[in-house]
Amino acid sequence: MSSFGDMNPDEFRKYGKQLIDWIADYLEQPDRYPVLSRVEPGEVKSQLPSAPPASPESMEAILADFDNIIVPGLTHWNNPGFFAYFGVSGPLPGVLAEMLSAGINVNAMMWRTSPSATELEEVVMNWLRQMVGLPDSFEGVIMDTASISTLTAVAAAREALNLRIREEGMAGRSDLPRLRMYTSEQSHSSVEKAGLVLGIGQAGVRKIEVDSEFRMRPDRLAAAIAEDRARGWLPFFVCATVGTTSTTSIDPVPAIADICEREELWLHVDGAYGGSAAIVPEMRHVLDGAERADSIVINPHKWMFTQVDFSAYYTRHPDIQKRAFSILPEYLRTTEGDAHAVKNFMDYGVQLGRRFRALKFWFIVRTFGVDGLIERIREHIRMAHCLAEWIDASSDFERVAPVPFSTVCFRAVPKNVPESQWGALNEKLMAAVNATGEVFLSHTKLNGFYIIRLAIGNIRTEEKHVRRAWELLNAECGKLSAEYAV
Amino acid sequence: MSSFGDMNPDEFRKYGKQLIDWIADYLEQPDRYPVLSRVEPGEVKSQLPSAPPASPESMEAILADFDNIIVPGLTHWNNPGFFAYFGVSGPLPGVLAEMLSAGINVNAMMWRTSPSATELEEVVMNWLRQMVGLPDSFEGVIMDTASISTLTAVAAAREALNLRIREEGMAGRSDLPRLRMYTSEQSHSSVEKAGLVLGIGQAGVRKIEVDSEFRMRPDRLAAAIAEDRARGWLPFFVCATVGTTSTTSIDPVPAIADICEREELWLHVDGAYGGSAAIVPEMRHVLDGAERADSIVINPHKWMFTQVDFSAYYTRHPDIQKRAFSILPEYLRTTEGDAHAVKNFMDYGVQLGRRFRALKFWFIVRTFGVDGLIERIREHIRMAHCLAEWIDASSDFERVAPVPFSTVCFRAVPKNVPESQWGALNEKLMAAVNATGEVFLSHTKLNGFYIIRLAIGNIRTEEKHVRRAWELLNAECGKLSAEYAV
Repeated sequence: MSSFGDMNPDEFRKYGKQLIDWIADYLEQPDRYPVLSRVEPGEVKSQLPSAPPASPESMEAILADFDNIIVPGLTHWNNPGFFAYFGVSGPLPGVLAEMLSAGINVNAMMWRTSPSATELEEVVMNWLRQMVGLPDSFEGVIMDTASISTLTAVAAAREALNLRIREEGMAGRSDLPRLRMYTSEQSHSSVEKAGLVLGIGQAGVRKIEVDSEFRMRPDRLAAAIAEDRARGWLPFFVCATVGTTSTTSIDPVPAIADICEREELWLHVDGAYGGSAAIVPEMRHVLDGAERADSIVINPHKWMFTQVDFSAYYTRHPDIQKRAFSILPEYLRTTEGDAHAVKNFMDYGVQLGRRFRALKFWFIVRTFGVDGLIERIREHIRMAHCLAEWIDASSDFERVAPVPFSTVCFRAVPKNVPESQWGALNEKLMAAVNATGEVFLSHTKLNGFYIIRLAIGNIRTEEKHVRRAWELLNAECGKLSAEYAV
Repeated sequence: MSSFGDMNPDEFRKYGKQLIDWIADYLEQPDRYPVLSRVEPGEVKSQLPSAPPASPESMEAILADFDNIIVPGLTHWNNPGFFAYFGVSGPLPGVLAEMLSAGINVNAMMWRTSPSATELEEVVMNWLRQMVGLPDSFEGVIMDTASISTLTAVAAAREALNLRIREEGMAGRSDLPRLRMYTSEQSHSSVEKAGLVLGIGQAGVRKIEVDSEFRMRPDRLAAAIAEDRARGWLPFFVCATVGTTSTTSIDPVPAIADICEREELWLHVDGAYGGSAAIVPEMRHVLDGAERADSIVINPHKWMFTQVDFSAYYTRHPDIQKRAFSILPEYLRTTEGDAHAVKNFMDYGVQLGRRFRALKFWFIVRTFGVDGLIERIREHIRMAHCLAEWIDASSDFERVAPVPFSTVCFRAVPKNVPESQWGALNEKLMAAVNATGEVFLSHTKLNGFYIIRLAIGNIRTEEKHVRRAWELLNAECGKLSAEYAV
């Protein structure tokens, strides 16, 4: 093997083992760096050459730059104090699987291009389906992100209309009504984005009001559909969310499913975050009604401790999905595909090229065991409830939403500060605790108020980390209250 | 660090180092396994439990299954005899980078969620832009696949029409004409798929005739546009291909750019395969005219030796692209984003979640050096020309297309076999050489004929491997000719 082809293999062995130690050290002390990077905009870029090197550089030099330039510019999602957005984990078994995946570097576009990749995908998607309690009428495919999974669902729903949109498109057709999809005011931006991309348009994405606990109101959904039909719109798709982004509220899926069945609308359940919790027996109910959905997305790369990217998409209508997406040029035909003896996953989505993502999930489920995954999610929920209790017992903070999963929404309400200042104070409070480098929180707005979110999702987070976040919030709130007090 | 959180770190060190050796061994002898997997449909699946394990399993057991069940079911894209589709490479420096990326597991959705990931993406996309000779009016963003890059381009072109499609959608609007996009009969299926997904429809994707060398005919494009306008269609997008999938033909981009400028159409250049060759000085011309394109895609994960997935998308209109895709919910707002002090890449495409892909390309360009990458691509082209010469000198084979890059299209034309049997014979010939396990070729159809393709793209492929493919083709053709001879 000449080194012309690739890096010298001995060098690879040396640096590879060095990096294994680097990763182990990094993850043994995941709180050694500030969670939120402290670099200024442009700081990383300014340290890197603006032109590529003509000649090879040494791995020593590259790794030194990684340590000195890249690492300080990372926001450490593995830090147990990472409580922003939804936490993720990059567990060690997943690192091993991703190494292998990068080494073998196969493309899982067709069965033929690596039968193992296709068949392991079928196997692990079947495992996950069982873990969350969905019936075997659902078939799964691994997507990269929930954004793509949801777009896939809307595209399949549009195809299910049988309006020849695949063949004739949507513009300039006098025989097409305006199309309407529904989701709650609290649903993720990816639902609206799917509408934009697929040509449904923002006006075609009707956002349904939520109740006081941020759940879609089925009565309002039914009324909106009736109103739209009366006005000549064609309703075709509803997205219900199990675990919305701001508050992790759970839309009433059974009631929404009733409406979708009656109205013959495609029901998609966005369980990107919350769906993972359904593996916990006492949380199984969060997916009640989802068995009646037409499609569902659950992101193991969020709360099932799998490296990004891995979004699990299930549908009861693989044939419709295939009709929406499949194009088979001659150069991708195979005898086994023509004989329908195999699944070619390229037929079920936008992307032709597909990484071998099943491997990491297989490693993770097997090393942790389903019981191990359940225990970890259960512990996250327990810790969130601890925090909720502390907040409820405090006079300086108020909790602003229920805690169905592992995310807590709250704000500081110090009595010595005028209410008109609470928004500004909470914004500063979040910036102040984030500046400590010990925790990273993110925010949202609810009913017009600035709200802080603390989401627990990393496997390294322990109660002491949640407690520390609470201490910091109290300490910084005390300082800011003094500043803002009149 | 309790092992409750993650796998025991000492175990990780042990197995990680073992896998580093596994990968080094694997890639030192990449031809130890048959290129094309020999498993039967269902064979991998049948060896795996249909339900997930409740309790943890040992890494020993998992790795044994990997060796015994997964590996035999792989099609070995790293095998130097892999000549199907377009070859890719999983080089060792990329393995190192992907390990790190899996370990740090950051999400590059926003600058804040890892400034290094965003700024390194800007830096390496700027490097690649310079390497292929595009002007700095192009801004880059890393996508996962060319399928997504091309979809992104069509969506931006649709937005550039200023027809309020983002706001109002496309269906049921009496003010919208039918939309038409253009690409050649030889372009990749992802162009048509983008049309389907975005609601342009198959009828909205007009395929332009090619010349005898499989290049789009600009005269036919101009005529089609004129005809469509006369009939009330609204032309809006043209995709020219630099390196089509079947024959790697190069559409005449300058002439197509003239038409697009005159007609005010968005020009997208699909250089997913061929664009990489532009880093070779004497091949720079393949992107002539691309500097006038509105967008361009080049896939380093094809022919620039970067692990899947890495598709480089460039546009001269980042503002339009952002208009097509950006949605900013409160929970994703940041002070630096609001101040426009940073780039948040989530604004430029479908996906919110984004892996840290820049790292692998940075490792690869630096370890090989641009000159090293140039040499390797140059050598692939040289080898393809060798094969073309052997074919041209043979009376049993004919070459059916020019060889502008590293892919050769040909068929067996044995004189002792009736022409009516050539199609069947070539199909069997390909199956026979693939069955040897030494090489993997794929096919296409051109002018109705079954054609074999041999595409060189792996860094481990040397002249001896191409020569061996040629020997096998001749040997198997001899056997089959005897069978088919009348």
